[in-house]
Amino acid sequence: MTDSWATFGVDLHLELTGPGLRAGLADALRQAARTGRLAPGTRLPSSRTLAVDLGVARNTVADAYAELVAEGWLTARQGSGTRVAPRSVARGEPEPAAVRRPRRTGPAYSLRPGSPDLASFPRTEWLRASRRALTAAPHDAFGYGDPRGRTELRTVLADYLARARGVHADPDRIVICAGFAHGLMLLGKVLRGRRVREVAVESYGLDLHWNLLADAGLRTRALSVDEHGSRTDELGSEGAVLMTPAHQFPMGVPLHPDRRTAAVDWARTTGGVVLEDDYDGEFRYDRQPVGALQGLDPGRVVYCGTASKSIAPGLRLGWLVLPGEMVGQVLEAKGPSDWMSSSLEQLTLAEFIASGAYDRHVRSMRLRYRRRRDQLVEALAERAPDIRVSGIAAGLHAVLELPPGTEQSVVQAAAWQGLALDGGAQFRHTGVRDGRDMLVVGYGTPPDSAWTGALDALCRVLP
Amino acid sequence: MTDSWATFGVDLHLELTGPGLRAGLADALRQAARTGRLAPGTRLPSSRTLAVDLGVARNTVADAYAELVAEGWLTARQGSGTRVAPRSVARGEPEPAAVRRPRRTGPAYSLRPGSPDLASFPRTEWLRASRRALTAAPHDAFGYGDPRGRTELRTVLADYLARARGVHADPDRIVICAGFAHGLMLLGKVLRGRRVREVAVESYGLDLHWNLLADAGLRTRALSVDEHGSRTDELGSEGAVLMTPAHQFPMGVPLHPDRRTAAVDWARTTGGVVLEDDYDGEFRYDRQPVGALQGLDPGRVVYCGTASKSIAPGLRLGWLVLPGEMVGQVLEAKGPSDWMSSSLEQLTLAEFIASGAYDRHVRSMRLRYRRRRDQLVEALAERAPDIRVSGIAAGLHAVLELPPGTEQSVVQAAAWQGLALDGGAQFRHTGVRDGRDMLVVGYGTPPDSAWTGALDALCRVLP
Repeated sequence: MTDSWATFGVDLHLELTGPGLRAGLADALRQAARTGRLAPGTRLPSSRTLAVDLGVARNTVADAYAELVAEGWLTARQGSGTRVAPRSVARGEPEPAAVRRPRRTGPAYSLRPGSPDLASFPRTEWLRASRRALTAAPHDAFGYGDPRGRTELRTVLADYLARARGVHADPDRIVICAGFAHGLMLLGKVLRGRRVREVAVESYGLDLHWNLLADAGLRTRALSVDEHGSRTDELGSEGAVLMTPAHQFPMGVPLHPDRRTAAVDWARTTGGVVLEDDYDGEFRYDRQPVGALQGLDPGRVVYCGTASKSIAPGLRLGWLVLPGEMVGQVLEAKGPSDWMSSSLEQLTLAEFIASGAYDRHVRSMRLRYRRRRDQLVEALAERAPDIRVSGIAAGLHAVLELPPGTEQSVVQAAAWQGLALDGGAQFRHTGVRDGRDMLVVGYGTPPDSAWTGALDALCRVLP
Repeated sequence: MTDSWATFGVDLHLELTGPGLRAGLADALRQAARTGRLAPGTRLPSSRTLAVDLGVARNTVADAYAELVAEGWLTARQGSGTRVAPRSVARGEPEPAAVRRPRRTGPAYSLRPGSPDLASFPRTEWLRASRRALTAAPHDAFGYGDPRGRTELRTVLADYLARARGVHADPDRIVICAGFAHGLMLLGKVLRGRRVREVAVESYGLDLHWNLLADAGLRTRALSVDEHGSRTDELGSEGAVLMTPAHQFPMGVPLHPDRRTAAVDWARTTGGVVLEDDYDGEFRYDRQPVGALQGLDPGRVVYCGTASKSIAPGLRLGWLVLPGEMVGQVLEAKGPSDWMSSSLEQLTLAEFIASGAYDRHVRSMRLRYRRRRDQLVEALAERAPDIRVSGIAAGLHAVLELPPGTEQSVVQAAAWQGLALDGGAQFRHTGVRDGRDMLVVGYGTPPDSAWTGALDALCRVLP
């Protein structure tokens, strides 16, 4: 889901429409590395993953990789995967102008989940909030800040989260971070410092998050996910559990009320911590929002929120609401030099929320996403009536169940037609074997102008 | 130099103007911890440092700390220092409104170095650049970005740095980071990954930086600093050296041309790396700017720049210009989740530079700082003619040599009069014994409105 990853898939897609798959793949990679479109050090997807994505045999990818390693374009190391080799830019030798500002060409459409509709960024309202924030900011806002984040933002967030998400929040227990991943890095350090060795995660989720925990020295163990969310009865002696209670990612179900209670009880009994990833809690369509789990026991649950889905990931703003005794631990993990978020962006978001613009934006996006959700469900009912769709009560994505054995070929067929799709394999924790074939369709991703085309392309590739 | 640190000194100063020093200090600390002004986990300065800063006996501070540890307000652990103890906020018990948005009262004046004049932040021009950036931004600017940073910013930075600092820069070898400290964290990881164990640093500098290297598992060894800058002949088998060639911090001298060559030769001979911290390279008054060392050998020198001194630290924007083979290593150290800088701030800075506003701002600040520098020198000549002042050809601070044995009492006297000052002890690497008595006067720090008062207060406390 990283940017270079997407670029990568893209370049390949363009180059691979002819015969001679292995040679074409090798050529595309060589070209991308030579021109710098693939930056030195970029980690390539595993041959298995890329093969699935491109819909080619795994050996085809493995052979192309091996060829480029032999030529010195790629490096392959145990544990670090396959990467673009460092290259030394010859001093004084300018690269062609075209390379200096690489133009990225993508697939025509993307329905990959994980991004809001970036074309709907509220530019005017954001600029307005920015102007008010800049005008009102005290001089010290331009200096080195409080490592917890600006007090103005923590204060409005505490009110907003209490009102909108049922979070028991206090500005003094909020720490601003540069998005959820940064927050998870800090929490990983804190858990490791508390001698936690293993964290329970959900069997479907993002390997990006599991890898961050692994980087902090924490093993991850996967809880099964069923139609009621994660199987909390599988929780054991782990020191913490990372979960998405309001809207399981990517399966789309809310955690059953009994399991919400069970998760908190587990934490109380074992001294464990629940890390609640509330990535898209604002977007719920058919009934009342599911409040944050954190409200059940603010002393046992860390609430993790983000502006990445509700506004845009480019802002790099997220927040942790912490049990009292963890505030100091997180600040210690941050260290004295980790002031990662721009004060001006923090003040602008504070203004954006305080002025009501945030609520208006979320409401307007909720309507837009719900309309797309409805159109998706209708189109499927008409054009692919055998496909079961689920996880549609909330969020920016839906799960489409596919006939057994078809996931890979559907993703492949879509790629050939210029539609980027993610299958379920993308989100499965290592070791989970019972994977059903499915697509995770991010209907929030395309801009309005591309939505109808993307939906049509999707229907065309479904079995 | 951290914010909590400053707040801390401030609160104490206010409470300590009466008799009963130990009791007053203990009261002030207790009050600050109780109300949350000192956040749980905040590390307190060592009793030695605080004693120097407050101008009280070290035992007075040590006793007050011990009392609060006994009462449970503070914790003291070997290796982790004295910290504010975690406290559990009772659920549902609101804290008084006054505490929720703490008002910070500071000393009347600060002449501590390390900050530009925050009151001069170019609000109007910045907002203008922000508007243009927001209007022109492609949709993908709001998404997860390139871990190297926005290409727009890297492109204008490459031009600017070549023009203004003589840096041999290429957008592909620039990585945007969230300020110098973030860059140094990444470089520390890279060095450690290259099996470097020790880094040479300058015997005067910031312990914040040395601690970041230590956190990465690197020992630091100090090079002596004399009137020609760091003693490069003391470089040995370290894998890297961190230095401030254009303007030694805090001593204020440029590195002698012979030593510039020697540093690069050392790197070539030993395979080492020079980390060039160009924190205030734009501000030079009496002759041509000293170009970046990096221009001598872009394959051996990492250039580290920042907007923290030229515009403001609150932006959290810095940049590394890397030797080709280190780009991949730094991106690997960043990892796939470290997109730490807001895209909008990056695009705004790109606009700010491209439109010429950056040059205009730097020019205008250069005039302002030079005027203050001249006023400082004149005032000293008149009111404290025995004080030798040095390091005045550049930057935002000067060094005032004090009679032996007077540094501590001068800093103390200033604190009692509401003027925050830093003595040389603050910046000395552990183990350096030959410390002369001095003040490091940050004449860039106060707003214009406070400058005359600050200068007057300084002259009054000088011997």
